[in-house]
Amino acid sequence: MSQIHDTIRAIRWADDHLLLLDQRRLPHTQVDVVCRSASEVAAAIRDMVVRGAPAIGITAAYGVVLAAQAQAVRVSVADLPAAIEPDLAQLAQARPTAVNLAWALERMRRCLQGESGDAVAALCAEAAAIHEEDIAANRRMGELGSALMEAPVGVLTHCNTGSLATGGYGTALGVIRSACAAGKVRQVYADETRPWLQGARLTAWELVQDGIPVQLIAEGAAAYLMQRGAVDWVVVGSDRIAANGDVANKIGTYGLAVLARHHGVRFMVVAPTSTVDLSVPDGQGIPIEIRSGEELLRLDGQPLAAAGAGAWNPVFDVTPASLVDAIVTERGVLREPNREKILAMMKSD
Amino acid sequence: MSQIHDTIRAIRWADDHLLLLDQRRLPHTQVDVVCRSASEVAAAIRDMVVRGAPAIGITAAYGVVLAAQAQAVRVSVADLPAAIEPDLAQLAQARPTAVNLAWALERMRRCLQGESGDAVAALCAEAAAIHEEDIAANRRMGELGSALMEAPVGVLTHCNTGSLATGGYGTALGVIRSACAAGKVRQVYADETRPWLQGARLTAWELVQDGIPVQLIAEGAAAYLMQRGAVDWVVVGSDRIAANGDVANKIGTYGLAVLARHHGVRFMVVAPTSTVDLSVPDGQGIPIEIRSGEELLRLDGQPLAAAGAGAWNPVFDVTPASLVDAIVTERGVLREPNREKILAMMKSD
Repeated sequence: MSQIHDTIRAIRWADDHLLLLDQRRLPHTQVDVVCRSASEVAAAIRDMVVRGAPAIGITAAYGVVLAAQAQAVRVSVADLPAAIEPDLAQLAQARPTAVNLAWALERMRRCLQGESGDAVAALCAEAAAIHEEDIAANRRMGELGSALMEAPVGVLTHCNTGSLATGGYGTALGVIRSACAAGKVRQVYADETRPWLQGARLTAWELVQDGIPVQLIAEGAAAYLMQRGAVDWVVVGSDRIAANGDVANKIGTYGLAVLARHHGVRFMVVAPTSTVDLSVPDGQGIPIEIRSGEELLRLDGQPLAAAGAGAWNPVFDVTPASLVDAIVTERGVLREPNREKILAMMKSD
Repeated sequence: MSQIHDTIRAIRWADDHLLLLDQRRLPHTQVDVVCRSASEVAAAIRDMVVRGAPAIGITAAYGVVLAAQAQAVRVSVADLPAAIEPDLAQLAQARPTAVNLAWALERMRRCLQGESGDAVAALCAEAAAIHEEDIAANRRMGELGSALMEAPVGVLTHCNTGSLATGGYGTALGVIRSACAAGKVRQVYADETRPWLQGARLTAWELVQDGIPVQLIAEGAAAYLMQRGAVDWVVVGSDRIAANGDVANKIGTYGLAVLARHHGVRFMVVAPTSTVDLSVPDGQGIPIEIRSGEELLRLDGQPLAAAGAGAWNPVFDVTPASLVDAIVTERGVLREPNREKILAMMKSD
């Protein structure tokens, strides 16, 4: 079994610029997008060169380094925070749902506070630390999530939550990797995940390289798969977890949670604590990004649908905590998550 | 509002051959496939030139006419039934799930029994009768189904159940047409319906031509749409209804039924009585077609998914009668369908 999770680095800092593996073109073409400014980073996030909540946070952190690089030659260290604030605002607005973005920006802001030496070097080290900590968190979550599974399990995942969506290894896909390494998994199923096909393009690509057999399904087949008893755990990531444990994630996640509960299938959410937003009391407060209907109506520029049809293209939904059996973070496992358990976990820092 | 349902005839008999509008190429290209033999008809059904349970039945009936045409010049009328039986067997095996296929073949067999005159003309008239009766049934179901709705309703449908899937007008889409004509519909939503995209390609095409605004969604967005309260009725067709009211239909239907029940959304199945199979006691007895995973992994020959990934591609699923609020046939409405109600309806012929 090859170790893709140790070799794929979709986000790479290269001395003074950022290289992002263009996830829009995977798996057919492997090409980097070069970002030399915070604006270019914001555009790359907005246009989904990079996607996945933890990966967006890491990328934004490097965007702050680029912003500081550009301003450091013009202003003093003391003036740097104010000078880069417009860039941070631009990065913050790149995509609305993943809170890891705001979390990373806030951490970079704090890094700069009181810094009097080489601010760019300090920010660069902080971004690298965010990146490495995310990988370590994923490894830990992989162990914790895998430990919840009793072999042999059928696992269904949604979207891409692997090395490409994170610093490396993955959240939900990290759990699946760990469970496979432990010999616990009978079969991995992955939703193809319309309209961007992250399951078919990205998750399958990572698993094939790991030597883990994967069966793709259309989202519409998930209920029948569960009805047949083929799925023991649905394992997904998250873009934002509210204070009460409600979980925003890729559109389709909420439906899977309803179906899982109907069939007695367990439902696991795997996300680092950087995904938890205590400022949002419940899922209703999480902004849900609606992207252009063209993403549904066309594929690679070619029309899929009849001309004149409209499309509604929300790209996230919210699963109420009551449908979640376990939230796994790097700090531990919350079974039947609720406000008290979330708050206690976040205070355990 | 144009009257597409009166002008689109996807299945046309032309003196001595059959013209089928190639539904694989819609909406981008409108081209007919010409069938001059039962074998060609069987291939057209198998390869999905024509799809939709009622349309498959009508097409197979015309296939029997072609079989009789070919044999009538070689054998006596008395020997014709035996002579065409291999063709009927081939037609019967073209696709396994839609029982309308077997129903139409059986009706054509009965037409031939005791026929002593121009058998081909008799069969041709019978196929045309099957075709016209289907349109009449759809019109009746349209009225009955629409009458169940209290304006203003949000309606979600799945796959294509319109003029293309039937003799004309449609089953579930016929209900939606009638409800729209009655001014009852606030918004029509249609699942794009992976992997064949019948919703995006065919349902949207029909509705756009009718001047009925349609919003396409990815299957994964259905749960969120219901959570927002945008859907009052899910309306679908069927490929086979078991004696107890269990309903086989396009993959994804069962999941919609579970989601509908969870959200208090009503679930309507619209199908002519030719779809009811009393020989099958419940849904477990309905054969579910599994098609090639390539249909999921590729689009128009181009790879969608990562090389090396597998795919599981069941194209139907079974919704238990307990999740169905109403079955609408041309004979009436069965609320909370069960074995007794199905049997009583079928005896009412």
